[in-house]
Amino acid sequence: LAQLRRVVLERLMRYYRFLSETTLRRPAKTVTSGQIAEALDIDPTQVRKDFGAIGLLGMGRVGFEVCEVCRGIRHVLGFDEPYEAVMIGAGHLGSALMAYKNFAGYGLDIVAVFDNDPRKIGSKVAGRTVQSMRSLKPFIRRHNIRLAILTTPADVSQKLVDRVVSAGVKAIWNFAPIQVAVPPDVFVRNEHISLGLSEIAYHLAQEI
Amino acid sequence: LAQLRRVVLERLMRYYRFLSETTLRRPAKTVTSGQIAEALDIDPTQVRKDFGAIGLLGMGRVGFEVCEVCRGIRHVLGFDEPYEAVMIGAGHLGSALMAYKNFAGYGLDIVAVFDNDPRKIGSKVAGRTVQSMRSLKPFIRRHNIRLAILTTPADVSQKLVDRVVSAGVKAIWNFAPIQVAVPPDVFVRNEHISLGLSEIAYHLAQEI
Repeated sequence: LAQLRRVVLERLMRYYRFLSETTLRRPAKTVTSGQIAEALDIDPTQVRKDFGAIGLLGMGRVGFEVCEVCRGIRHVLGFDEPYEAVMIGAGHLGSALMAYKNFAGYGLDIVAVFDNDPRKIGSKVAGRTVQSMRSLKPFIRRHNIRLAILTTPADVSQKLVDRVVSAGVKAIWNFAPIQVAVPPDVFVRNEHISLGLSEIAYHLAQEI
Repeated sequence: LAQLRRVVLERLMRYYRFLSETTLRRPAKTVTSGQIAEALDIDPTQVRKDFGAIGLLGMGRVGFEVCEVCRGIRHVLGFDEPYEAVMIGAGHLGSALMAYKNFAGYGLDIVAVFDNDPRKIGSKVAGRTVQSMRSLKPFIRRHNIRLAILTTPADVSQKLVDRVVSAGVKAIWNFAPIQVAVPPDVFVRNEHISLGLSEIAYHLAQEI
């Protein structure tokens, strides 16, 4: 299988979410590329191309078997190989992500949470006890953690990234409002919460 | 000015954030498309094309004036026309977004927060008193609110969207883990927090 680009991975995730959502509401055995395309506002040719790229072939007018598509996407995206992560930062956003129940379905298990605020250390967030940042590096080493989720303020984020990378972390899911630098073998996914405002503000300004 | 597509708006937002961030750290009068392109991993031709599309012309090898670029992007995206929003849901995510200080810089002011949990109603979130959902519709009407930010569980989200739309809301910033239906004149921006996991899980699975 060729390396899949980010946009393809994200579309596969959208297909997966759509199929999980709709079949929960109204169980269906098959789905057509046209139905998916319409619901997600994507070209049907694109849908068929993406499915083809991960080895899913439709059955003409009948379309695709929902289960087969979901299994195929899960397999390609690696959701069936569970991985553990640490949460860095026990503020509102860190707590929100800890409490989010859907992550388990994607293979993600957030096994520990760290903060440097003495008032937070020792308290519980989504069933996990908040640990001191001093325990971060030894914890990652001991449990062979490969993913760190970053929800810290901008000014301390780079220092913390350096620390977890030196402990062996191979991927950073970055919710901190800053770009972080990592060695070439470490993968960073930046979530830029304000990004959506570009569209919203533009839309509202056009409307006046 | 032609209608700008979502991908262009998002790139403009990335340029804006990059320029705001870097000039905070190291003030600069000018920047080249090459510098922006390298930092954000975007083709330099694309950067110049996007700038051209909003009327920004560079000065040959000197590049672009940082202030002029920031002003241009702010103007196009509508950040200089402040708009008020209501937050629906005072859980962890709603609270995290309420506490986020950067929104003001994009023109967004979250003026009220609503929840249906009696234990939350009356408490404070980021300086705002949580109000009952029963006050939602009259509040939107009275203050002429055009944006609602949705951080509620999947099962109640559509009902709440219908309610705020009937009160006059013209844009929904949707953090609920579900697609919501709206009339054609209402704009929805879906934030799909799990989307990043498509890349992360794929990357970690490839790495083994």
